[in-house]
Amino acid sequence: MTVRRGGRSKRTRERIVAAALRLFNEFGEPDTTTSLIAAEMAISPGNLYYHFRNKEEIVEALCADFENEMAAVLNRSEAQTDEVEEIWRQIRDTFDVVWRYRFLYRDLNNILSRIRSVEVLFRRILGLSVDAALQACERLGAVGEMETDEMERRALADNLVVVASYWLSFEFVREPRQPLGEAALRRGAFQVLAVAAPYLRGRSRAFYEELSKKYPVA
Amino acid sequence: MTVRRGGRSKRTRERIVAAALRLFNEFGEPDTTTSLIAAEMAISPGNLYYHFRNKEEIVEALCADFENEMAAVLNRSEAQTDEVEEIWRQIRDTFDVVWRYRFLYRDLNNILSRIRSVEVLFRRILGLSVDAALQACERLGAVGEMETDEMERRALADNLVVVASYWLSFEFVREPRQPLGEAALRRGAFQVLAVAAPYLRGRSRAFYEELSKKYPVA
Repeated sequence: MTVRRGGRSKRTRERIVAAALRLFNEFGEPDTTTSLIAAEMAISPGNLYYHFRNKEEIVEALCADFENEMAAVLNRSEAQTDEVEEIWRQIRDTFDVVWRYRFLYRDLNNILSRIRSVEVLFRRILGLSVDAALQACERLGAVGEMETDEMERRALADNLVVVASYWLSFEFVREPRQPLGEAALRRGAFQVLAVAAPYLRGRSRAFYEELSKKYPVA
Repeated sequence: MTVRRGGRSKRTRERIVAAALRLFNEFGEPDTTTSLIAAEMAISPGNLYYHFRNKEEIVEALCADFENEMAAVLNRSEAQTDEVEEIWRQIRDTFDVVWRYRFLYRDLNNILSRIRSVEVLFRRILGLSVDAALQACERLGAVGEMETDEMERRALADNLVVVASYWLSFEFVREPRQPLGEAALRRGAFQVLAVAAPYLRGRSRAFYEELSKKYPVA
């Protein structure tokens, strides 16, 4: 019985996190209360508070999930590659993760200023992303598929992460009345690759040129 | 007497706007109330409400100033240039404007979702910026100082604006405990130019290379 109750309890916890993510993404984290989350799930606020003492703890749980999913994309064994196709998949996949947790970017500074643990975590994710970008450039360079000096590579890695992190925010400001979707994600991933494109050589450059026929810039 | 009172009244209005800008930049717009603005100026809330019915009207006034300053930088006659030095000054100057109104970027989506007029205005500023970037690239291209095709130029213009708009947000997340300052602005302007650098030729390319010695990427 205890085991079974533990299982149900764990399921409730997971359901709370999933419902919160849905509501945060739809209405923004600042405008979503714990009461709304409980109401959405048709559970009592008391039941919710049994699992999370406050909304901040739910945000922290979601941020931990976000970091895990991002790290999984950036650190997976196939990511340690000099194949441009795999790097492209990796960019696409990071956009999918950002999209799933888009509420974080919507009110990023607000959330960071309120929840210290999220601030630390976000800085870590940015650092991880810049490192991953830098290493991908170095691997491409080692096989003659990218031509940069050390300085250019560092400036490039930062710009890759800025475009990857903020492309969806830019699109949102540009088209606030149109729901962002799959097309914006693909276009964002293409824009990231476009930052690196002038430095690409050989097969990698040819891959980018093929891709640019598929993603015509409006 | 009427003239004199009109003059004093106008000055009070301007002082309210200036005080609000200072407080918004320091504490964020969502956490700054009209009472705080009145208290900061040592005037009564009634006096403030005589000039602005609510905080949204103050934000609108600031946004109009922001748009005017940005348009002044992007449209000034020297900006219609193929001189890379002037384009560099223009990038630097847009960073100064963004810095002066940094509260807007700190809680951008929050502010946009609350104040429809700001949403419209912001979209217009982004459009203006992308056009200015595109035209600068075309002018450089016409004198052989930049080499891109039409497609590359469009992807490039968007990326220039993304980095220009979000570099300070990126720095803020990366170093939330360090006050952003002059160094971050210069570095941001350099990162914008770095996006375009691989396409630069001749004197413009040489200018960038000189610059990159002055702004070593950490």
